[in-house]
Amino acid sequence: MRIAVINEVSARDKNGQIMAALKSHGLEAISIGMGENKAEPELTYIHTGFMAGLALYTKAADFVVGGCGTGQGFLLSAMQYPGVFCGLIESPLDAWLFSQINGGNCASLALNKGFGWAGDINLHYIFDKLFCDPAGQGYPPHRCESQKGSREALANISRIAHVDMPAIIKCMDPAIVDIVMNHRPFANFIKQFGRNNICQPQ
Amino acid sequence: MRIAVINEVSARDKNGQIMAALKSHGLEAISIGMGENKAEPELTYIHTGFMAGLALYTKAADFVVGGCGTGQGFLLSAMQYPGVFCGLIESPLDAWLFSQINGGNCASLALNKGFGWAGDINLHYIFDKLFCDPAGQGYPPHRCESQKGSREALANISRIAHVDMPAIIKCMDPAIVDIVMNHRPFANFIKQFGRNNICQPQ
Amino acid sequence: MRIAVINEVSARDKNGQIMAALKSHGLEAISIGMGENKAEPELTYIHTGFMAGLALYTKAADFVVGGCGTGQGFLLSAMQYPGVFCGLIESPLDAWLFSQINGGNCASLALNKGFGWAGDINLHYIFDKLFCDPAGQGYPPHRCESQKGSREALANISRIAHVDMPAIIKCMDPAIVDIVMNHRPFANFIKQFGRNNICQPQ
Amino acid sequence: MRIAVINEVSARDKNGQIMAALKSHGLEAISIGMGENKAEPELTYIHTGFMAGLALYTKAADFVVGGCGTGQGFLLSAMQYPGVFCGLIESPLDAWLFSQINGGNCASLALNKGFGWAGDINLHYIFDKLFCDPAGQGYPPHRCESQKGSREALANISRIAHVDMPAIIKCMDPAIVDIVMNHRPFANFIKQFGRNNICQPQ
Repeated sequence: MRIAVINEVSARDKNGQIMAALKSHGLEAISIGMGENKAEPELTYIHTGFMAGLALYTKAADFVVGGCGTGQGFLLSAMQYPGVFCGLIESPLDAWLFSQINGGNCASLALNKGFGWAGDINLHYIFDKLFCDPAGQGYPPHRCESQKGSREALANISRIAHVDMPAIIKCMDPAIVDIVMNHRPFANFIKQFGRNNICQPQ
Repeated sequence: MRIAVINEVSARDKNGQIMAALKSHGLEAISIGMGENKAEPELTYIHTGFMAGLALYTKAADFVVGGCGTGQGFLLSAMQYPGVFCGLIESPLDAWLFSQINGGNCASLALNKGFGWAGDINLHYIFDKLFCDPAGQGYPPHRCESQKGSREALANISRIAHVDMPAIIKCMDPAIVDIVMNHRPFANFIKQFGRNNICQPQ
Repeated sequence: MRIAVINEVSARDKNGQIMAALKSHGLEAISIGMGENKAEPELTYIHTGFMAGLALYTKAADFVVGGCGTGQGFLLSAMQYPGVFCGLIESPLDAWLFSQINGGNCASLALNKGFGWAGDINLHYIFDKLFCDPAGQGYPPHRCESQKGSREALANISRIAHVDMPAIIKCMDPAIVDIVMNHRPFANFIKQFGRNNICQPQ
Repeated sequence: MRIAVINEVSARDKNGQIMAALKSHGLEAISIGMGENKAEPELTYIHTGFMAGLALYTKAADFVVGGCGTGQGFLLSAMQYPGVFCGLIESPLDAWLFSQINGGNCASLALNKGFGWAGDINLHYIFDKLFCDPAGQGYPPHRCESQKGSREALANISRIAHVDMPAIIKCMDPAIVDIVMNHRPFANFIKQFGRNNICQPQ
């Protein structure tokens, strides 16, 4: 499983902690949003949510870890795109329940609100429980079948309710698309791992 | 402001507590999902999220309060539809920050996870802070303008990325649409307050 | 009700936020631990817990608000002394339940762990609920009498289990006593409001 | 390390979950408070806190896990006795920080407030982090020495500030002592593992 880590400006100082926590669990994680490099143009959750949608659409990423000050903005943004199922994860229990009940492909973290002493340790615990068990086993057990049905219905609704990604890109504000496509870590990631060239429209 | 309260099966026993908490703040709240009536057909978050989308699309509701066991399922479901901006709200601070930063029109509550003693009191506190200040004032103050820009960009992306609601309804699994349209509290609500008859296709 | 605010070194930068939050609720709050003044000698929770015990023993304070990085250290320290009943308070619901069930005279706050964006706003919410209702009304209601009995038994046990405060002071490490007694905001507070001169043994 | 689990009446239904969580980590845990047996006389935190003090004083237990509805009552009660250092633990991060910073010998759990879906899973996570690393290593690292000094000072203050346990027992309300000493799981535990017979005064 390849995990894309996508941080916006308000959480760029936590990027290293997220990467370290993921890697300590032996997970393949690639940072494609903002990080330590202060020279990069500023990304807000408008950009990072779009990146999440593209990273999952192109199958360059199997899972996206993003976030913002409270986690709500990145979540709202990423959830605009087809095939994105993003949970707001603040504790190890959130992480495990989301993986078991919702089996989503995206996690949004609160990276300023409630993020104090040992916030990085909490990230370790969260990622441990997010990825420790096979996703989608259900909780509580007697709701397992109903929850499986809901996940399938949701995937179907996501297809029905959204415009195709190429059409979305065409209609997006070019200023947003430009910043995203020219963000080098993102562009390189899609180029290397993406199964189609949707992100580099000529 | 008219608030629609929409609960699924796993949280039906909390419906009365949500209604009481909203009303104690003098808010106009109408329960249109599951409640005490055990004879109703079972609604999952697939149904309640769709209801949220419809209640906001028809402008029957100005705000939707929903939820599920962890809050993640209703959020994932409601966020499939155009013009829905849903936060996951577990504390008064979540509520206030969401109203100030994101200014959304929907809140998803965790109604089993972490819901124990005095969970109803916590709902009081949450609704107090969700609705006490004018939405969208920004936090922290110096990010106010940037956040306003992000909210506007997000509203635009929601229009771009989604199919029109009438087209979504046409493509939805009829089994889902039927349960929703035949859920009397919901149907009555749309009939009374909705600005179009999208929900009763002939 | 006079509230003494007592911060140790790890939380000195939150002292102003605590004071502002208490005062915004119209409460009489006096800072007697560490604050902005960098020239003061360093206080750890060993000192601030002792100060809490003395402030309550002398009746200079009716209530003490303290804390440390996680809140656990100040709590452990303050609870060594007779007549101190300290809760660990991290949310408005904690605050209200502690006031209703335990009716204590001391609150310990986590001032680094989990203290991020809008941590000061959360302090506002906490103090609102800590002091909004008359203490000791019980929760849930049917446990009211049993909880009253427990509070009375606890007060009695505190007297039985502890040495008298003057004897404690005599046996304490003089290095600790000296730092505490020479901390001017504390000494002035006891001098002005204390009902006995236990803190200035000649 | 031998762990005594001591539940009061409000949390008796969680006793089995606590025991299971501790045992799943290979820990030696013995339930000596209330459990499934409905015939037992009711214990409140007044009794269970006293039991905690006795179990640690007699060295029958190396660590005590207790709790109540919010965790505050058991904590207040257990902290009345000499040599008890009890933290309020609600999350895995609380658990780890308490073990590293405070290195206490007692944990109080909130067993009704916030205890909902998967509360038992959260107990697993909490005990994992409470006991995974050697206690008292400090956090953050640069405060390690200062924290070690504080723990030693605190242990000393606990001795100074408290009456000896035998004297406490003599002065306690006989009604409380009787219930405690006649609670068979507790009495058997002290008899089997206690290093003195303080609990069975003739």
